[in-house]
Amino acid sequence: MPRIVVDVMPKPEILDPQGKAIVGALPRLGFTSFSSVRQGKRFELTVDGEVTEDILAQARDAAETLLSNPVIEDVVNVEVVEA
Amino acid sequence: MPRIVVDVMPKPEILDPQGKAIVGALPRLGFTSFSSVRQGKRFELTVDGEVTEDILAQARDAAETLLSNPVIEDVVNVEVVEA
Repeated sequence: MPRIVVDVMPKPEILDPQGKAIVGALPRLGFTSFSSVRQGKRFELTVDGEVTEDILAQARDAAETLLSNPVIEDVVNVEVVEA
Repeated sequence: MPRIVVDVMPKPEILDPQGKAIVGALPRLGFTSFSSVRQGKRFELTVDGEVTEDILAQARDAAETLLSNPVIEDVVNVEVVEA
């Protein structure tokens, strides 16, 4: 069944304590090539049947209203993945 | 600067209470086209300079050891995004 993937990331000006914790832990584990880390969310919405324009618009709307907090987060990607 | 995106999702057999909560809330907001929702994580690792094969291998290794819990989560995607 097709799925719609929604990616949500903290806005660049928002502190991301989880990302900061990861970037501190990486060198202790020997991973020294990364200068910063941001942690966001990925949602997979399963659609029964075909993904129409209307359903994709619903997903974009849900991404902005339910899946993200527009004060502190950006919806960076909404895309259809056939499974 | 280039970033490496790592996507982590709960394994299919693992309960996902956040996804369940979202799938319950969607119809109350008028979104009726989605039969299930899974919530995972998205990480963006910033790389200073070029992404070499070695750095990508480091990112894959970090994804399996630090960014995900292999008992309950799958790394579903590791890809380079030029910014």
